[in-house]
Amino acid sequence: MRLLMTIDELKAFLQSDFPQVSGEFTIEDLGEMRIRMRLNVSERHLRPGGTVSGPSIFALADVAVYLAVLAMIGPQGLAVTTSSSLDFMRKPVAGRDLIAECRLLKLGRVLAVGEVLVFSDGDDRPVARASMTYSIPPKT
Amino acid sequence: MRLLMTIDELKAFLQSDFPQVSGEFTIEDLGEMRIRMRLNVSERHLRPGGTVSGPSIFALADVAVYLAVLAMIGPQGLAVTTSSSLDFMRKPVAGRDLIAECRLLKLGRVLAVGEVLVFSDGDDRPVARASMTYSIPPKT
Amino acid sequence: MRLLMTIDELKAFLQSDFPQVSGEFTIEDLGEMRIRMRLNVSERHLRPGGTVSGPSIFALADVAVYLAVLAMIGPQGLAVTTSSSLDFMRKPVAGRDLIAECRLLKLGRVLAVGEVLVFSDGDDRPVARASMTYSIPPKT
Amino acid sequence: MRLLMTIDELKAFLQSDFPQVSGEFTIEDLGEMRIRMRLNVSERHLRPGGTVSGPSIFALADVAVYLAVLAMIGPQGLAVTTSSSLDFMRKPVAGRDLIAECRLLKLGRVLAVGEVLVFSDGDDRPVARASMTYSIPPKT
Repeated sequence: MRLLMTIDELKAFLQSDFPQVSGEFTIEDLGEMRIRMRLNVSERHLRPGGTVSGPSIFALADVAVYLAVLAMIGPQGLAVTTSSSLDFMRKPVAGRDLIAECRLLKLGRVLAVGEVLVFSDGDDRPVARASMTYSIPPKT
Repeated sequence: MRLLMTIDELKAFLQSDFPQVSGEFTIEDLGEMRIRMRLNVSERHLRPGGTVSGPSIFALADVAVYLAVLAMIGPQGLAVTTSSSLDFMRKPVAGRDLIAECRLLKLGRVLAVGEVLVFSDGDDRPVARASMTYSIPPKT
Repeated sequence: MRLLMTIDELKAFLQSDFPQVSGEFTIEDLGEMRIRMRLNVSERHLRPGGTVSGPSIFALADVAVYLAVLAMIGPQGLAVTTSSSLDFMRKPVAGRDLIAECRLLKLGRVLAVGEVLVFSDGDDRPVARASMTYSIPPKT
Repeated sequence: MRLLMTIDELKAFLQSDFPQVSGEFTIEDLGEMRIRMRLNVSERHLRPGGTVSGPSIFALADVAVYLAVLAMIGPQGLAVTTSSSLDFMRKPVAGRDLIAECRLLKLGRVLAVGEVLVFSDGDDRPVARASMTYSIPPKT
């Protein structure tokens, strides 16, 4: 299977369909069945002690799988998360962005499954892992 | 086991330790090993089409389990989520707050497990379910 | 929605389609969107120390959700588990059967979601919790 | 961190402590923080249609993480699974063993987290993915 969208097209899609959050994320790299994304950590993502909040890590993993799926099936706003599981393993390094390495393990007709490892930028010990299942709407 | 904190004490803790998010949530009811919380849905929680975002639902479930644990063990800011699993089952009803019904299934010395059902206010069909494991720091 | 199968019909289905495992499980109670099942614990389910193995608990939760779904949609051998999450919370009581209380939270056209609490027979503290997503094949 | 046990030592541990299941599994490869294991598929693991059962896949993932942890901390029978999440993505290839590729993402003082990809032997499309959290008993 081949990529149907470029980084620039994904970026434009994110800006038009998710204007509220598009500034928080940067697409760093894109390939067939995989994507690397950055959470541009700012005050809004932090918890006391300078750690990045769980919901922010969830959001990063979720958008990574979403865009990895879109890149393969084309811009369809209606794919929705149906199941997710996350393990939080280490406190993120203070003052660093988070990097999500996402790989699609399955891209079926109705379900897609992606796995994500989240790192503090520049550190190779995973902060969190996530797996996400997306339901893909039927072609119309 | 008995409650060690009241709704007012939990509210004060949330305001002092999590000022960024405390306004988003309301504690509706509290009992031994259970809590009911409301996400006061506003623009920041919404996705296109008026649906509440996945990260917002994660945040609601997470804070519910956290406060249910704190109410039983007393105010300890250091309990952290270690594992979580969520299933998203229905689109939330547009224009409604979300209600989380949380129950602690285990409150051990080092781990606590809570389960959460999330509903659109006034609707009895669950929007999402979540289970969360918290690691409880050793008493010092 | 109404039940399309009785306990006896589910039992017959289990015996004909899953003869290898049907003797391990007893359907204790059945209702709309819920089922109660028993794992008839024997030597094969045990681990050293007399505890019931994780795979046996998984099997109990899985069959409970499967039969709860079948009871609502009719005998369709092709429903398959797509996602599952389990938390193991307490050591089962030695020498007791396990009881699964299962409730369907969603029964959609393509996906069903069930949650399960597992208890040692006669004990009200949950041994484990599980959530399972089943994919339902299209009607043919 | 270095390996504290060899493949032969793990095998001997499995045979002495888990005699009921030790014949089902083969340790194929072992390294720091990782293990590859084989489920020697036989009649008992199969479901109608020749597919490997969900509980068998759970068992394979569970034992892989368990042995990967033991290899790093030494033979301690008391590590227990606390949380697990599995996604089932493809029907296993009929008549083939299953291979689990397991990696430990975290090996802390009280919790270890492993992720597992399961393949049909000789096929590179994952049948399932799993993540497992183990609780490690305090040293005595």
